[in-house]
Amino acid sequence: MSKGHPPRIQRRGLLLVLSSPSGAGKTTISRALLERDSNLTLSVSATTRPKRPNELEGVHYFFKDQAGFDAMVEKGEFLEYAEVFGHSYGTPKAPVEKSLADGKDVLFDIDWQGTQQVAAAMSGDLVRVFLLPPSHEELERRLRSRAQDSEEVVQGRMAKAASEMEHWNEYEYVVINVDFDRCLADVEAILRAERLKRVRQTNLDAFVGDLTSEG
Amino acid sequence: MSKGHPPRIQRRGLLLVLSSPSGAGKTTISRALLERDSNLTLSVSATTRPKRPNELEGVHYFFKDQAGFDAMVEKGEFLEYAEVFGHSYGTPKAPVEKSLADGKDVLFDIDWQGTQQVAAAMSGDLVRVFLLPPSHEELERRLRSRAQDSEEVVQGRMAKAASEMEHWNEYEYVVINVDFDRCLADVEAILRAERLKRVRQTNLDAFVGDLTSEG
Repeated sequence: MSKGHPPRIQRRGLLLVLSSPSGAGKTTISRALLERDSNLTLSVSATTRPKRPNELEGVHYFFKDQAGFDAMVEKGEFLEYAEVFGHSYGTPKAPVEKSLADGKDVLFDIDWQGTQQVAAAMSGDLVRVFLLPPSHEELERRLRSRAQDSEEVVQGRMAKAASEMEHWNEYEYVVINVDFDRCLADVEAILRAERLKRVRQTNLDAFVGDLTSEG
Repeated sequence: MSKGHPPRIQRRGLLLVLSSPSGAGKTTISRALLERDSNLTLSVSATTRPKRPNELEGVHYFFKDQAGFDAMVEKGEFLEYAEVFGHSYGTPKAPVEKSLADGKDVLFDIDWQGTQQVAAAMSGDLVRVFLLPPSHEELERRLRSRAQDSEEVVQGRMAKAASEMEHWNEYEYVVINVDFDRCLADVEAILRAERLKRVRQTNLDAFVGDLTSEG
């Protein structure tokens, strides 16, 4: 029984933004997504912070001096950028746009402020997912178990998490991370579904044209 | 290790519309979805066509006489309705709205014309999926294998399928049915993802409020 050739649908890539407060599992979920999905790559940021011995240029970061970074800012070459603890970090636009055009999806591990900047630049390609912890108690447990921290440090983390969580309603999807497997399956379903959106499949017009043409 | 109680997220249901030309596998996919997903129910239509012996009122159809049907039309009680081969068919609004409010999802097996009417009435709750066959040859094979039909009948079906397929671009998602398992998994991913949309989760505000409140 012939099924014919599988259709050659071309697709524009998408930008998957995963945001969450610390303690909601974002890093673990991101790693699992990247391992399991060969069409998804992590966006590589540029930074002015010094390169560490184990880091590779273009893999972990694009390392820049401040003048080089500032020049990129001025030329509008960043999708988003910010200063954190005295160093600049930014997402270069060009590699992301190349990925999208090639039908590759790009994962962003950025906070709500970065997300707002990316949304302003590329809203149509953006899929925003906000991860939430299952409960206040569980969040506190996760933030506390990181090390032998003082109560003050833990409360500081809780306050920071609370302030990050105030931005949940700027995201298209909200996933509650009750357990890892279910949360991962949720995010994978979002990615799979978004890839099936009509607007991302770029040659459907020609494909349907072939379907409806006379044999 | 306590994970806390799973969060009690409330959700508004959604309307899943699956449309396709004959021969693209809609009926098989619909049945599989309904069997595998206990939160999904098939919308029950009202009709003026006579009840067949094996059919049950309220399960297969709500059976109406023409006056009763016309009264419902006049009172705006249908989400969509149409006449097919001399009988009237329509989707009553009230049971659908109750399902949505209860967080139940409703599957619609309707064509592009019905979809347009439902979209006008309930656009925010609507998730539209269009199934396409993998190729012209495969579509013809499926339409031909139904029975020992004359060439004229087959060509008529092909023409009807082609005219239905012209409406693919009125749907949010387009799934190409290359093989059953993958197509089913695609539609299930769409359903899972759409349920995770922020706007469908109706008590996130209170949930995040609990997360961010002080211990």
